[in-house]
Amino acid sequence: MRIFLYLVLLISSSLQTIRRKEEVAGKRSKFFWTLCNLLKQQPPYRELVSPESLEFPIQRKSEKMESGGVDHLAGERSKAQFDVDEMKIVWAGSRHDFELSDRISRLVASDPAFRKDNRVMLSRKELFKNTLRKAAYAWKRIIELRLTEEEANKLRFYVDEAAFTDLHWGMFVPAIKGQGTDEQQQKWLPLAHRMQIIGCYAQTELGHGSNVQGLETTATFDPQADEFVIHSPTLTSSKWWPGGLGKVSTHAVVYARLITDGQEQGVHGFIVQLRSLDDHMPLPGITIGDIGMKFGNGAYNTMDNGVMRFDNVRIPRDQMLMRVLQVTREGKCVESNVPRQLIYGTMVYVRQTIVADASRALSRAVCIATRYSAVRRQFGAQNGLETQVIDYKTQQSRLFPLIASAYAFRFVGEWLKWLYTDVTQRLQANDFSTLPEAHACTAGLKSLTTSVTADAIEECRKLCGGHGYLCSSGLPELFAVYVPACTYEGDNVVLLLQVARFLMKTVAQLPSGKKPVGTTAYLGRVEHLMQYHCGVQNAEDWLNPSVVLEVFEARAARMCVNRAQKLGSFPNPEEGFAELSAFLAEAAVAHCQLIVVSKFIEKLQQDIPGGEGVKQQLHNLCNIYALNLINRHLGDFLSTGAISAKQASLANDQLRSLFSQVRPNAIALVDAFNYTDHYLGSILGCYDGNVYPKLYDEAWKDPLNDSVVPDGYQEYIRPMLKQQLRNARL
Amino acid sequence: MRIFLYLVLLISSSLQTIRRKEEVAGKRSKFFWTLCNLLKQQPPYRELVSPESLEFPIQRKSEKMESGGVDHLAGERSKAQFDVDEMKIVWAGSRHDFELSDRISRLVASDPAFRKDNRVMLSRKELFKNTLRKAAYAWKRIIELRLTEEEANKLRFYVDEAAFTDLHWGMFVPAIKGQGTDEQQQKWLPLAHRMQIIGCYAQTELGHGSNVQGLETTATFDPQADEFVIHSPTLTSSKWWPGGLGKVSTHAVVYARLITDGQEQGVHGFIVQLRSLDDHMPLPGITIGDIGMKFGNGAYNTMDNGVMRFDNVRIPRDQMLMRVLQVTREGKCVESNVPRQLIYGTMVYVRQTIVADASRALSRAVCIATRYSAVRRQFGAQNGLETQVIDYKTQQSRLFPLIASAYAFRFVGEWLKWLYTDVTQRLQANDFSTLPEAHACTAGLKSLTTSVTADAIEECRKLCGGHGYLCSSGLPELFAVYVPACTYEGDNVVLLLQVARFLMKTVAQLPSGKKPVGTTAYLGRVEHLMQYHCGVQNAEDWLNPSVVLEVFEARAARMCVNRAQKLGSFPNPEEGFAELSAFLAEAAVAHCQLIVVSKFIEKLQQDIPGGEGVKQQLHNLCNIYALNLINRHLGDFLSTGAISAKQASLANDQLRSLFSQVRPNAIALVDAFNYTDHYLGSILGCYDGNVYPKLYDEAWKDPLNDSVVPDGYQEYIRPMLKQQLRNARL
Repeated sequence: MRIFLYLVLLISSSLQTIRRKEEVAGKRSKFFWTLCNLLKQQPPYRELVSPESLEFPIQRKSEKMESGGVDHLAGERSKAQFDVDEMKIVWAGSRHDFELSDRISRLVASDPAFRKDNRVMLSRKELFKNTLRKAAYAWKRIIELRLTEEEANKLRFYVDEAAFTDLHWGMFVPAIKGQGTDEQQQKWLPLAHRMQIIGCYAQTELGHGSNVQGLETTATFDPQADEFVIHSPTLTSSKWWPGGLGKVSTHAVVYARLITDGQEQGVHGFIVQLRSLDDHMPLPGITIGDIGMKFGNGAYNTMDNGVMRFDNVRIPRDQMLMRVLQVTREGKCVESNVPRQLIYGTMVYVRQTIVADASRALSRAVCIATRYSAVRRQFGAQNGLETQVIDYKTQQSRLFPLIASAYAFRFVGEWLKWLYTDVTQRLQANDFSTLPEAHACTAGLKSLTTSVTADAIEECRKLCGGHGYLCSSGLPELFAVYVPACTYEGDNVVLLLQVARFLMKTVAQLPSGKKPVGTTAYLGRVEHLMQYHCGVQNAEDWLNPSVVLEVFEARAARMCVNRAQKLGSFPNPEEGFAELSAFLAEAAVAHCQLIVVSKFIEKLQQDIPGGEGVKQQLHNLCNIYALNLINRHLGDFLSTGAISAKQASLANDQLRSLFSQVRPNAIALVDAFNYTDHYLGSILGCYDGNVYPKLYDEAWKDPLNDSVVPDGYQEYIRPMLKQQLRNARL
Repeated sequence: MRIFLYLVLLISSSLQTIRRKEEVAGKRSKFFWTLCNLLKQQPPYRELVSPESLEFPIQRKSEKMESGGVDHLAGERSKAQFDVDEMKIVWAGSRHDFELSDRISRLVASDPAFRKDNRVMLSRKELFKNTLRKAAYAWKRIIELRLTEEEANKLRFYVDEAAFTDLHWGMFVPAIKGQGTDEQQQKWLPLAHRMQIIGCYAQTELGHGSNVQGLETTATFDPQADEFVIHSPTLTSSKWWPGGLGKVSTHAVVYARLITDGQEQGVHGFIVQLRSLDDHMPLPGITIGDIGMKFGNGAYNTMDNGVMRFDNVRIPRDQMLMRVLQVTREGKCVESNVPRQLIYGTMVYVRQTIVADASRALSRAVCIATRYSAVRRQFGAQNGLETQVIDYKTQQSRLFPLIASAYAFRFVGEWLKWLYTDVTQRLQANDFSTLPEAHACTAGLKSLTTSVTADAIEECRKLCGGHGYLCSSGLPELFAVYVPACTYEGDNVVLLLQVARFLMKTVAQLPSGKKPVGTTAYLGRVEHLMQYHCGVQNAEDWLNPSVVLEVFEARAARMCVNRAQKLGSFPNPEEGFAELSAFLAEAAVAHCQLIVVSKFIEKLQQDIPGGEGVKQQLHNLCNIYALNLINRHLGDFLSTGAISAKQASLANDQLRSLFSQVRPNAIALVDAFNYTDHYLGSILGCYDGNVYPKLYDEAWKDPLNDSVVPDGYQEYIRPMLKQQLRNARL
């Protein structure tokens, strides 16, 4: 959350871009574990603990048990035209992944220490203390149960609460691994692995976000003392946003402008001890605090995002992270030969996890809204029962495309995971050829999926009507904790501009015969796509995947060419890019949507377990995803001539027909996400659909209901009623 | 917030639709005051208080004084090409309105009792108690200062905190006035006017929102005791959402199914005492509580939205509100002759206030985002300073259309106020001819403006980057408190369907020669509009208001005709309407956007103070509003053939040029809203632009910073650091 990315995420000269997402999105230390894999190291705790003979304390409960034996949505479930258990495996990615998630999510859900239903009612102090407890407890359990990396990763995910540990494992440790020398790693990592020190990642400043080169904090080498002097010269140089900094971390990797011999040497990382290991007080010269409340109840307020100022704080020379650049005893700077391209690989990794998170957040919201739409009835009474809200076409036209988007993002995320592996293997073989395309692709998909997901969570809340406004619906907190994803790890608009820049470059190189690779390969067929005429003549033609694909390709290709032509009319290309930036971003969106559609279609061409039932549902969702986009971005499709107005109208007809086909399967399609009630954290979305008694019971837990007569009655209400206000002291 | 409107807001047979908006949006008791006007009564307190010789305690401060003498945005302000003081009057509506708002907003801002900057940090109990204090204090001040209706109204607005008093004045009192007999009014109103009783409006139930006829609470007449027995037969019949109910109200107007002699007689209102006037305890048979936390920090959690169940509670017969229907001593039902159409007039009134509120909320968000965009710098360093974020075209293309929308909504709101007056005068003359059109128009504009505003507040938050995520930006709370506007007083989708229904009816009646009136008059020229060819040949042509207007008319008319044709292909029109509902809603949006555009253009044709400078700015904003819509709804414009792809591209070129023209005026355009820093409640949006020191100071106020070492260190952090977790009790 330290990130403030209006503009292009510059790749700084260090490995410092291994960062961010973990710091904000918290919860997921996949990042850490994969870095372990990446660096071919085992995670640390296996070495640290003596085995204890603890059994896995959780038994698999059936969902019916979880809901107390009564399933108000059983009727809906019985309508499903596919095997939901098979779809769960498709959603999870594999039987192994399904079983892992299933087991760990139930482990967390069944442990009262991990309850989170009281989170929105706690004051900031109570909330934060509670998070400290949970973090300590989770770590204790990970050690006790001797969890594997995968299991520990899942456990942190299902605990579903942002905490300082996310930064310790996700940013501090990787920063030392990525940027520290072997010697530094040997010194600091064992301490960090045992959590004898707790670290955070102090990069952004009050006045400086994504522009790393604009940071103001200085680290001046004092050759006489063989020390660096870390200093905050201005108010705007105060470190601002780092998670875990405000109240917990004992150490930080601090980014500062290196100055040796009066010369600026760029921004580098320094390990700085912040607090005493005896009494936790900040060390002399260091001022630290929490930056205050953030959006929403509970939500990200479990994290101690911090502010920090340095007043000439001295650290030994060997605490500068020197894998890339060394400062010698004499104050000379010596560069190393570490290959820089690794940074891009890491960015591909981090952003693909964000896409995976988008599908999880979106599916969570859509699961809540879908189940509640089947429970809620309004108007149209027949046989004494009002109509289920999910049966209204207006509800379907808003809800079902979001179910489809959740699946679409899940599959494109799965593919991005493959892309990351592919890029990594190529990097190891010194093949950098696909890197720019992979980088643009992940940047664009990060932007697209997080923007859609943030809006979709709020749309799901609205789809739940008035009750969606209650915290007990779970949606307000989900929204508040999710929305920073649009800003961190590259502001979404900025990332689209990166994609647009790459697309313009790709188009510009076409005449030279350079073949576009990967997701831009279609631009190699640009002449064909400029000539393309969509052959759709009736609504059913829109069910043909190759028709859909080519329409999306034609639209994206034509938008790219059109933008490139327009750019060409500017004498200065950079000025043209700045002037047309909003217009260029539209082409990037079209390109990214094409990627999602094409990967969904590719998924359908693979072997999918569960037979025709499952496959048919996915076909329907894929078509809904694509046709809904055509409807929402009709201006693009028509202005490029990719389709005609008549064909657009047919797409709409087909879309309505698909909604009807999805309707009986809607509940089963969200059941396939296999989320526990604990993870969903929503009364409206509870598995058994027994919404009203639970809403009623939940209300009484509000602190305001501790007393029947409210605090303040004697001072403020009674004097008003008794006409004694004039003399009251208020 | 008691409203849960998935579907058509049915007009029940009583006046009970005088309701809602006040209950949710709180803050504004304009509703009350206008009802006073409507009913030709003076507000009550003038009669109640003996004059005290209190002077108005506030002196007008210049904005420079407010900001401590340093204006970091002075450079921006000096660039403005128009007289901002004149624009303030245009925005306010008149010099009188400006002076009133200016004076009262400063009165509130200067009184420490009304501070609200600590709201997001308070626990629910503290927050609520604080609201009780403010409400009592505001009432005391209104009486002490002998404020006029207008002034009192403004004071409540600028206090900017939802409270039980909103429901008392905005719903309870009007319900008695509108639905009570003269006798009932004489008995209850003086008590309510003195606040010797405090009332709320208990309509919605846990399982029932907008479908008033679906309410389950019963009121059974017992002829032997001459009493009604109020009862909650089921859990879902629990009253749920009424503001002011949970902890404060002593009385309520309760809506229940009237049953006399075993016969259902529809839903009616009953005055029920809820709590003892001695000790505030709920009366026997009544269970009441607060329904718990709602979206956001602070925000709507100042309100005690409540839950209530009745266990055979008895009230005298004369506490049924009997203006429309009387129950006689024998239990007979006798209808009165009160004209029903008044209800529609009231709905027009309530919804026009929601449109006015939308322009206020939107302008508030946009003021914050615009000022901060001028303060924040990122990348592109020149002369040592980075580029102001507001200078990026991507930022302009998101921000400036929102400035334009704020003005557009302000002017259409102003026009709606006129429309309400017009409708009222016609009603008094028994002319009901324009009522359906006025009703559809206000329903549609309520839907359009609240949807846009809710999204726009979040967009403004994103435009503020990372710092927008801090509560001290003011935007999280503004969003959380605003979003219910999309649901209450008619769910926005449902309202669009009402508009669509009206449009389809209007189109169907065209062949019979029936002339469409008011905002649908353009449909009378449908043949011309179906033939229309847009003559735009270069970008400047888009500056011609009549061109813009006709393009919007052609698009809306063609969409209406197209939908009507499609409806005609269904054998059963109702089934067709249900099937095509999402598609029909699009036509309603097109129609509503046309209204906003046309009223903006009309405004420009009026006398506007401030000379050409002011007028030129408004022209620019009007064009930005319209051309941005063309860009965002391009599919509509192209598929209907209202414009060509080439013309769309020219519109885009013109839009970019307009952004450049607005840029130097941007700060002055939001200064014209004349909001105090207190009302804005945002560090990022503060008038003087001195953002960073204020952000820094604000951070330290978080309760987490009460102690340097956090609570929980000894129990959770230290054992982790000291490797003593294994034996810790967590």
